[in-house]
Amino acid sequence: MGALCKKCRERAQIKLPRHNASFCQKHFKEYFFKQVEKAIKKEKMISPGERVLIAVSGGKDSLVLWDVLRELGYRADGLYVNLGIGDYSDRSEETCIRFASSRSANLYTISLPAFTGGAGIREISRKVRRKACAACGMIKRYLFNRFSWEMGYGVAATGHNLDDEAATLLGNLIGWKEDYLSRQAPVMPSNHPRMVRKVKPLFRVTEKETAACAVMSGIGYIYEECPLARGARSTVYKNTLNYLEQHSPGAKQQLFYNFLQKGRPGFLQKREDVQLQSCSRCGQPTATETCAVCQMLEKIGAPPLSLSEGGAVKQKAGEALAP
Amino acid sequence: MGALCKKCRERAQIKLPRHNASFCQKHFKEYFFKQVEKAIKKEKMISPGERVLIAVSGGKDSLVLWDVLRELGYRADGLYVNLGIGDYSDRSEETCIRFASSRSANLYTISLPAFTGGAGIREISRKVRRKACAACGMIKRYLFNRFSWEMGYGVAATGHNLDDEAATLLGNLIGWKEDYLSRQAPVMPSNHPRMVRKVKPLFRVTEKETAACAVMSGIGYIYEECPLARGARSTVYKNTLNYLEQHSPGAKQQLFYNFLQKGRPGFLQKREDVQLQSCSRCGQPTATETCAVCQMLEKIGAPPLSLSEGGAVKQKAGEALAP
Repeated sequence: MGALCKKCRERAQIKLPRHNASFCQKHFKEYFFKQVEKAIKKEKMISPGERVLIAVSGGKDSLVLWDVLRELGYRADGLYVNLGIGDYSDRSEETCIRFASSRSANLYTISLPAFTGGAGIREISRKVRRKACAACGMIKRYLFNRFSWEMGYGVAATGHNLDDEAATLLGNLIGWKEDYLSRQAPVMPSNHPRMVRKVKPLFRVTEKETAACAVMSGIGYIYEECPLARGARSTVYKNTLNYLEQHSPGAKQQLFYNFLQKGRPGFLQKREDVQLQSCSRCGQPTATETCAVCQMLEKIGAPPLSLSEGGAVKQKAGEALAP
Repeated sequence: MGALCKKCRERAQIKLPRHNASFCQKHFKEYFFKQVEKAIKKEKMISPGERVLIAVSGGKDSLVLWDVLRELGYRADGLYVNLGIGDYSDRSEETCIRFASSRSANLYTISLPAFTGGAGIREISRKVRRKACAACGMIKRYLFNRFSWEMGYGVAATGHNLDDEAATLLGNLIGWKEDYLSRQAPVMPSNHPRMVRKVKPLFRVTEKETAACAVMSGIGYIYEECPLARGARSTVYKNTLNYLEQHSPGAKQQLFYNFLQKGRPGFLQKREDVQLQSCSRCGQPTATETCAVCQMLEKIGAPPLSLSEGGAVKQKAGEALAP
């Protein structure tokens, strides 16, 4: 590479054209941690002492997020949802367990098939005639919020990075989806008694930077993409923005930061706030009488979901935390 | 290619993935003309019988626009502004003259150096310390509007195509420039007695389609880009959108059409309308007391600009039209 670290003038390990800077390993990690801390502080994501639950998938983003939050001194536990996508789910779960053990961190695992009489995402999406990614997203968001709330976490975090957020933004701009645009933010406050605040502390770092951080921190993660997500539109948007970034360094963050600062307030103003009610079956927030996940479970003949029954939730590694 | 024309099932000459269609030469031109006609009619660009002046550069877009408007029966004349960029300007001017002669069309040419004591864009931009493309755009827009108005044209047209418009939009979204976003439209109505309505009848067709139309219509055009525009940001945006379009056919038009339909009205509402006044030196519309072009001429020591003096305006080909 030949470049020198901006801080110590030692040989650089990574080049960040968007910041016009190169860093050695030590100062890259310092930079990375500072970006996460800045995101949390500036956007008021996590209060001091507040317990935070992280949705972990076994991929680099969520495991790096968990690692960094713990290193920064936050009380961060993990939740893995096994979605029953064959070997892929099992390998992902093992990866999360291995990471939690290595850090003596608290990891919960939920098995979706345990609630559905054995059906995973593939079967559910076929039965309810929805795209796998749509059904999966809905179920994961539901379980993440419900579990966080039932376990008394005030805030729930996901590993969405700058690439994820910018790609979603590009898609929403192409379709000019004002409702989605108004809801795209690093912090989504709770607007229902059973809704937990959602935060995205990695929104200031890129996928490439997160991967580098994982390698430098010795985090083993699942490289493969979910087999059901192949050819997803979001991948096209990510690659498009990578092309742009390569020829115009900084454009990706400009797009997202400028939207957050100048664009989003306008969409927020226009949004008609839907008054969320409580689902008649499970009590979770919903815009309809019965929530979409309860409707889905009904369609596939599964009973209402109870997290504290049937051994669907397991506690792995770290100190015990009873549900 | 192997594909067949959607209309006549003869061998196709061009494939349009964004329309999921292929066409033979005859039906491609039919499609192309229909898109231009649709743009004009739907956006109320040109009234029946109204004379229209086209800004021609010698490139494919403006010459195709001129050709198509004439074929569609519009009373369309051309204006070429020689910006004094050496050989490039001279070759461009010759190309326009050749085209006008071949069609017996009316072409005016204006020579910028004739107004500036010999200075072209390169020298002017150096003297006034502005980027060449910025100075050039300002001068061209000024001359185009002023000449159209002095010659009694009600409407002035440029050859901007879908690629141009989408690239500009992408740049404005990256910077979230609300003022520019509010002004990006296929029709800009006049908002000053000396301002002529501006229209972009090619906004529904792509660069590739316009190039194909030029070839099929036997239009000789200048292939080379302006030597001062090399490495322009707009080229990066165009290439980015071409990457996107290649992997998600139709995305480019979706971005631009959805913006026009759903996005732009919101920006228009928010815009504070600047009351345009008349320039104290030339009478042209301006937001300041003296317009930017008069200020520029003053800086380089050139006299106020008069189109009817000094032989700066020439009439080439076609029937005579006195200024």
